[in-house]
Amino acid sequence: MLLGAIEAGGTKFVCAVGKEDGTIVERTVIPTDLPEVTMKEVIKFFQKHKPSAIGIGTFGPADVDPVSVTFGTITSTPKQGWRNYPLVSELKKRFPVPIGFNTDVNAAALGEARLGAAKGLDSCLYITVGTGIGAGALIGGKLLQGLSHPEMGHILVRRHPNDSYAGKCPYHGDCLEGLAAGPAIEERWGVKGDQLKERAEVWEMEGFYLAQAIAQYILVLSPKKIILGGGVMKQAQLFPIIARNVQEMLNGYVSLPEITEHMEDYLVPPGLGDNAGITGALMLAYQAYTE
Amino acid sequence: MLLGAIEAGGTKFVCAVGKEDGTIVERTVIPTDLPEVTMKEVIKFFQKHKPSAIGIGTFGPADVDPVSVTFGTITSTPKQGWRNYPLVSELKKRFPVPIGFNTDVNAAALGEARLGAAKGLDSCLYITVGTGIGAGALIGGKLLQGLSHPEMGHILVRRHPNDSYAGKCPYHGDCLEGLAAGPAIEERWGVKGDQLKERAEVWEMEGFYLAQAIAQYILVLSPKKIILGGGVMKQAQLFPIIARNVQEMLNGYVSLPEITEHMEDYLVPPGLGDNAGITGALMLAYQAYTE
Repeated sequence: MLLGAIEAGGTKFVCAVGKEDGTIVERTVIPTDLPEVTMKEVIKFFQKHKPSAIGIGTFGPADVDPVSVTFGTITSTPKQGWRNYPLVSELKKRFPVPIGFNTDVNAAALGEARLGAAKGLDSCLYITVGTGIGAGALIGGKLLQGLSHPEMGHILVRRHPNDSYAGKCPYHGDCLEGLAAGPAIEERWGVKGDQLKERAEVWEMEGFYLAQAIAQYILVLSPKKIILGGGVMKQAQLFPIIARNVQEMLNGYVSLPEITEHMEDYLVPPGLGDNAGITGALMLAYQAYTE
Repeated sequence: MLLGAIEAGGTKFVCAVGKEDGTIVERTVIPTDLPEVTMKEVIKFFQKHKPSAIGIGTFGPADVDPVSVTFGTITSTPKQGWRNYPLVSELKKRFPVPIGFNTDVNAAALGEARLGAAKGLDSCLYITVGTGIGAGALIGGKLLQGLSHPEMGHILVRRHPNDSYAGKCPYHGDCLEGLAAGPAIEERWGVKGDQLKERAEVWEMEGFYLAQAIAQYILVLSPKKIILGGGVMKQAQLFPIIARNVQEMLNGYVSLPEITEHMEDYLVPPGLGDNAGITGALMLAYQAYTE
């Protein structure tokens, strides 16, 4: 049985076919253009492979509530042409197979829980720090979903005492994403993050903000494993800085050995590397197929 | 069939027997003394009624993970005699029936979801603001539980510009509980909250802090309904202040009508009033019985 997977992003659509064990048989990358342009290529790819189910991890916001009438739609995105685009129902017209649909970060959390760093656990949090900051979570074996999907990247953080940068979020100014996503790093320090590797103060400040957010996520969700991916997290020096700050901020209040002693096993990079998202989409396809 | 329920608190144990529809047949209140003193009375009450199952909503921290070897234990509490007290296994000795065990606030969330303000929903958040601040949640139909239970009352908030009070939390100083629980209100303003009803600035500040926390919970958990209980929330003038501040803080980013238009139906007092906790414990008993 061949499963289809789409990692739908603002700049590119990664499409793949593969198996329920996570093996990817073939993949292609399609630029995100107007929907009719991009979708024509997406459909062509899957017509060649005839998958038994398709899983989609998408950029947002999106309607991921299976009981909603607009389930499967990308909702209030500023991305031209994609606002209110009914991705799932458009695909269904060509492929009358089960289609799973969730956020890109929820898909990545599922991929990591099935086959990656959180393998075998019924609970994990996947955070991506890149052009934006987003997070998905598996809680009690299910992807986190309530009134809508989470928007964890926009939580408020207290400012670092040495930070005079105003923040870049068009909605909240200096929320987490506004202070700590890639574009904020570049605007604050004048060059891109990957050219700032040797500047210790850059990563101390970045780690301070990410740690604050992670401490809040721990207090609210108590995930069994936290996975940090995305372009900014390629700066591996961030991991020990974040771990130290989380411990200082929680100050022993959450007295679990995972947090007070073994943070290096608790706060980890994706086990699937850059394949977390597309593998998660494959797992969404398998979940849709078996349900 | 008679179900037993315990709302185990730091100052009193409320014990009740009742039915799966939430009807309470008899209840008693036992002061929280040393475990052997209190438990003797608890056992006496249930011996009289012979319940088919027992549900416990407890003060914490507690081990509520059913697969843990110390499940059913109150863990690192400073409460004399109760540290590492195996509440469930002690009860099991006398009553070999199914016993459900969760935090008091998770129990209250379950009670409200089954029979209260969130009746019929598979997702809600229950927050209590009193001597401390705590929260429980039902997510995807299940009580929120990961590595441990949540400790949402201790999240960090940004300080109100007019607040010079240091904060009262022994772990974090000016976390949410340290700034906004009942004892912080009393220490900051010099008298208890119920004598400050006419002082608008007291409730503007309190609402500012609670709204900040609620905005974070919405971004992380996206609950379908938020229920605010506890002694401080008897000040009903807080509800519109909180609603206004939550909307200002989210600033249209979460563009769902529940939040942008109908906040008065989204952010509500407990439908079960002061019975949310004990009713939830009864529901925990029923859940344990049917599982």
